[in-house]
Amino acid sequence: MILVNGAATNQVVATDRGLAYGDGVFRTFPVTSGRAHNWCFQFRKLAHDCAALALPCPAEAVLAEELIRVSAAQRECIVKIIVTRGSGERGYAPPQDPVPTRVVMASPRLHYPEEFARRGVRVQVCRTRLAAQPRLAGVKHLNRLENVIARSEWRDPAVVEGLMLDMEGNVIGGTMTNLLMVDENGLATPELSKCGVAGVTRERILAAAMRHGVTCRVEPLTLNRVLGARELILVNSVIGAWAVRDIEGRTLRPGPGMTRMQAWLEEKDV
Amino acid sequence: MILVNGAATNQVVATDRGLAYGDGVFRTFPVTSGRAHNWCFQFRKLAHDCAALALPCPAEAVLAEELIRVSAAQRECIVKIIVTRGSGERGYAPPQDPVPTRVVMASPRLHYPEEFARRGVRVQVCRTRLAAQPRLAGVKHLNRLENVIARSEWRDPAVVEGLMLDMEGNVIGGTMTNLLMVDENGLATPELSKCGVAGVTRERILAAAMRHGVTCRVEPLTLNRVLGARELILVNSVIGAWAVRDIEGRTLRPGPGMTRMQAWLEEKDV
Repeated sequence: MILVNGAATNQVVATDRGLAYGDGVFRTFPVTSGRAHNWCFQFRKLAHDCAALALPCPAEAVLAEELIRVSAAQRECIVKIIVTRGSGERGYAPPQDPVPTRVVMASPRLHYPEEFARRGVRVQVCRTRLAAQPRLAGVKHLNRLENVIARSEWRDPAVVEGLMLDMEGNVIGGTMTNLLMVDENGLATPELSKCGVAGVTRERILAAAMRHGVTCRVEPLTLNRVLGARELILVNSVIGAWAVRDIEGRTLRPGPGMTRMQAWLEEKDV
Repeated sequence: MILVNGAATNQVVATDRGLAYGDGVFRTFPVTSGRAHNWCFQFRKLAHDCAALALPCPAEAVLAEELIRVSAAQRECIVKIIVTRGSGERGYAPPQDPVPTRVVMASPRLHYPEEFARRGVRVQVCRTRLAAQPRLAGVKHLNRLENVIARSEWRDPAVVEGLMLDMEGNVIGGTMTNLLMVDENGLATPELSKCGVAGVTRERILAAAMRHGVTCRVEPLTLNRVLGARELILVNSVIGAWAVRDIEGRTLRPGPGMTRMQAWLEEKDV
């Protein structure tokens, strides 16, 4: 089911700035029995990303009610929320008083093979690099062609995710995931001030690490350093956490870092 | 009037990848009495940009017929064509056999003040920089948040366009225009291999320069060099050519470069 500005329809006006320019943001997360997983984090991130684009964010109560409506028919589903700057006259100039478009849609929750979480996944390194744009870094906006092109680099279903580097050769994350790594220096995750998406699950892990007195460094991570890690862990709101089992001919095993991260993600967030 | 895949409707499905990811390309050009200005160039650029995204391009005859239909009610209008990778399952992976969405829409042709062409326009330099992404440079794709943010830097209607620089401080063009400049070295236009849109009017000018034995350098242009130019000229398919009259406190006058460029743009393209 799809709601566009609260109305049951699967259509958006063709002049919407979301379509014209990718002028908007989105969120994707699981919903179980009408309950959005980590909704506080999801809404806070949506509001943050809207603010980054000077886009009025729909009220939390409105979205909360709409996500219950779209997910009512399914015990488990994935809900996607898109907020755009709405329709406008031709031209890049944002309307002075934009009327945002909100799209709330549910799709079936695909269950990934159980071994992805238990044994880990195969990952490759993408050739497509992420451009450095500090003004948009971290924001989950609708300009995602880099991710689309990177994801089109492989069709082999055995490869589950691709790592993306910035132009300087630092690993930023997967096409649809954030990356965490464990090496002899402890836990680390890429710094995302120039590109990449700062996802909710990464944020929850950083918060949990802090709660537990564990240092998680946020710093540039070269590909060499990533390939030399003891553990690599991919996270997002839909998959939770997957260990990397196989990358560029190297074999890794899920270890204590992965176990701890999965425990952290089970914790009730504060 | 709007046609979506040939049907008169102003709606696009909410799951379209154009909306989800900006996964598509577009063109905007004037149509007079059903005749699209420089259609050969417009279609060729559309096909080129589709190819850059590995997107099947609609047949020329289909688009040519549709642009006549949408523009039938008006002697003069602006037609916009959007081609997206169509609807797909959630996720960045492009569908193996995409069914592109084509949107062909007409809007009234706004007539800019006559003095814009005759006397020139006021321009400012934007703070928003363009990220370097060689994989997408030159292509007029739907990921245009940088342009939107740059264009939102000013509301003063006396400022008609904003120049955008790349991260290294080279001028790339206006938010909606390409730039040409004349200085003691002759005619030059920014090199666009890392960012920017290589527009049809710029391409027509490069072709005309070649036809007339005039050298137009395509090279990186620093802001200092641009600010020291004798003439600055902004071009796109809708406006044609505007001279810059006023930029960062400097005053310029339309000169022989502008006169020649306007003559070139009147020529029948070969």
